[in-house]
Amino acid sequence: MKAKIKILAFNCSLKKSDPEKNSSTRRLLEECLVAFAEEGAAGEIVHVADYRVEPGVTNDEGSGDQWPELRQKVDSADILLIGTPIWLGQPSSLAKRVLERLDIFLEEKNEKGHMPSYGKVATLAVVGNEDGAHYCTAAVFQALNDLGFTIPPNGMTYWVGEVMGSVDYIHLSKTPKVVAQMTKSMARTSTHLARLLRSRPFPPLPPD
Amino acid sequence: MKAKIKILAFNCSLKKSDPEKNSSTRRLLEECLVAFAEEGAAGEIVHVADYRVEPGVTNDEGSGDQWPELRQKVDSADILLIGTPIWLGQPSSLAKRVLERLDIFLEEKNEKGHMPSYGKVATLAVVGNEDGAHYCTAAVFQALNDLGFTIPPNGMTYWVGEVMGSVDYIHLSKTPKVVAQMTKSMARTSTHLARLLRSRPFPPLPPD
Amino acid sequence: MKAKIKILAFNCSLKKSDPEKNSSTRRLLEECLVAFAEEGAAGEIVHVADYRVEPGVTNDEGSGDQWPELRQKVDSADILLIGTPIWLGQPSSLAKRVLERLDIFLEEKNEKGHMPSYGKVATLAVVGNEDGAHYCTAAVFQALNDLGFTIPPNGMTYWVGEVMGSVDYIHLSKTPKVVAQMTKSMARTSTHLARLLRSRPFPPLPPD
Amino acid sequence: MKAKIKILAFNCSLKKSDPEKNSSTRRLLEECLVAFAEEGAAGEIVHVADYRVEPGVTNDEGSGDQWPELRQKVDSADILLIGTPIWLGQPSSLAKRVLERLDIFLEEKNEKGHMPSYGKVATLAVVGNEDGAHYCTAAVFQALNDLGFTIPPNGMTYWVGEVMGSVDYIHLSKTPKVVAQMTKSMARTSTHLARLLRSRPFPPLPPD
Repeated sequence: MKAKIKILAFNCSLKKSDPEKNSSTRRLLEECLVAFAEEGAAGEIVHVADYRVEPGVTNDEGSGDQWPELRQKVDSADILLIGTPIWLGQPSSLAKRVLERLDIFLEEKNEKGHMPSYGKVATLAVVGNEDGAHYCTAAVFQALNDLGFTIPPNGMTYWVGEVMGSVDYIHLSKTPKVVAQMTKSMARTSTHLARLLRSRPFPPLPPD
Repeated sequence: MKAKIKILAFNCSLKKSDPEKNSSTRRLLEECLVAFAEEGAAGEIVHVADYRVEPGVTNDEGSGDQWPELRQKVDSADILLIGTPIWLGQPSSLAKRVLERLDIFLEEKNEKGHMPSYGKVATLAVVGNEDGAHYCTAAVFQALNDLGFTIPPNGMTYWVGEVMGSVDYIHLSKTPKVVAQMTKSMARTSTHLARLLRSRPFPPLPPD
Repeated sequence: MKAKIKILAFNCSLKKSDPEKNSSTRRLLEECLVAFAEEGAAGEIVHVADYRVEPGVTNDEGSGDQWPELRQKVDSADILLIGTPIWLGQPSSLAKRVLERLDIFLEEKNEKGHMPSYGKVATLAVVGNEDGAHYCTAAVFQALNDLGFTIPPNGMTYWVGEVMGSVDYIHLSKTPKVVAQMTKSMARTSTHLARLLRSRPFPPLPPD
Repeated sequence: MKAKIKILAFNCSLKKSDPEKNSSTRRLLEECLVAFAEEGAAGEIVHVADYRVEPGVTNDEGSGDQWPELRQKVDSADILLIGTPIWLGQPSSLAKRVLERLDIFLEEKNEKGHMPSYGKVATLAVVGNEDGAHYCTAAVFQALNDLGFTIPPNGMTYWVGEVMGSVDYIHLSKTPKVVAQMTKSMARTSTHLARLLRSRPFPPLPPD
């Protein structure tokens, strides 16, 4: 029997969630979770803007900081999925905020020299009207790899429209086949990798 | 007589300001203001983390959003100076937040087709323990250029230590000569450019 | 009477030029030259792949290196226009090659402390099937700004198709209005800036 | 008995190799191979500038193109190690050249929907006088991940000096402890991952 794999998806949209109205980033993340379910992986979408996530690089920045609750979710996930809209060709400030709050991993190595992220897999979903997905991929994967996550082949899915486009992903009547294919492939490779790393963890690193 | 040029420096440190304790980003920005003063340019440092700057891309995101006050300062400045610490090799989430709040410029073109930034000059000051300054430069200047700012030659100054360094800029007993030189050059080229653009503004753009 | 402004456009396509067949990057660069002509600026397109440009960071890498001929063209231009296709979301290796060959500017400061690029304006034209234009802008402008070029507002024009698109710019029956508009705006702001900087050059920099 | 893992290291220095004189990039790559040997992985360093690698995105660009020989080496490697110097804060044009030549992977999917890179692990070694390693990591890993490689935690090792530094890695009397540690960790995590992926390959992807 295959181990159940747990996903945590951070929706890094700049807007608070709205039960009346779906959004582009949420749509793509929901499609991801459907694809993950087919691989035997399940989890939740956390809408970051609904939480008070203070700037900083510690585990609790005080004064009502709600990051500690999110950090616990990160700790129990096998796969982290960052969902970000594109603003100015780049990931959102909330995506960067989440990455900064994980910076503490660099100081939380265990007796094997592993960060808390060792064995966890990082994936990415990017949505914009036009252009910027590759830049987002570069920025987010570089940060998550520095932070100890493993990145599966074609670890991201994305949608962008034509130059200066004004259509939103949420308004597409159906998901483009290429996007559906990327989403499924991402779910499949990352779940496979997460299972492998759970059954055969990274060996201890050389001592400092 | 030369026109007085106005600088606005955003300190995008993740921490709130502390009157008891200087910080690396603040030190470099203060050095910038001294260099600008020698060029006949003056202004203030705004510590972004001291303000409530909500996520979003409008001029006022409501619920106590203090961006409107900062936006006014942007409007009256000739030179915008973004000061950012490096986290994960990249600009801080607060630097990205400020850039996102300026995204509205794209929709605020006047009758000449100019964004509010036309004629304004963008500069950058980056501080980290080690590595990442060029990445920050790329990300910030790409965004600010998209948003209509003009970028002077060698428009940034920075300090970074050796790989995996643990020294902070604030702890250096004296400012390295190369950094002082970059800071002065940046102040000189950007002030010259701001004066030129004030006396000879960009012509109207072709109508849509 | 307005000074005649000289453009140098580097076509950094990976393919050699083909008189029988136009290409996407060439089409956009030709459109740029038409727009520049309307501003009173003229110049030529140099197809980099037709020249032997050796790897290296000196002015002449020997063994048939044809960079010296191109370097002369750079020296006599007021505006440098880098035209690059997008490969893997990033500028082409030939675009990077050209930038590397300009690295020597850092060591060629004159008695004013100016690199040969001081007073020259940098612009960019990017073409891809889908995504990557902002990443290219970030990479190319960061490098050119380090090298002493001045960057005008909205200094780039680009075309990209929808995610995983397979249409080429060369196959579009007509130029999208948004692209034509970006191209004209780029020509106008950069020519204005080049004229300003020619009539009122940057002052000497502080001595080392 | 553990499977023998094969490494291919591309030295993307801009200079041809010189038997009389070691270089910074080569030194770091040699240190990597020593670290890999301790993990039971072995291979060779290929000095890209010694080969004629034509611009293009096919497997053989003709007219003396020597890429086909290098492509064969890529095909038989389990781990690809890109070694690049930093120029202008970014990877070398030869590193980009190599990545472009691998672009063809996108069209070489087998009956499982896998690119030739599926199951291969990508790693990176970056050397510069000062700054740029994170930018290189972002650019190279984004490209290699698009191309189907898997990226291990902390998949890169690097050395950079202090801002505007002039010391070269090759001149350091001894390897800094932090660099040696990164190199060993990279060798360990990537070899572990390559073994896992060889014994338990990625499942077929969903058909187009």
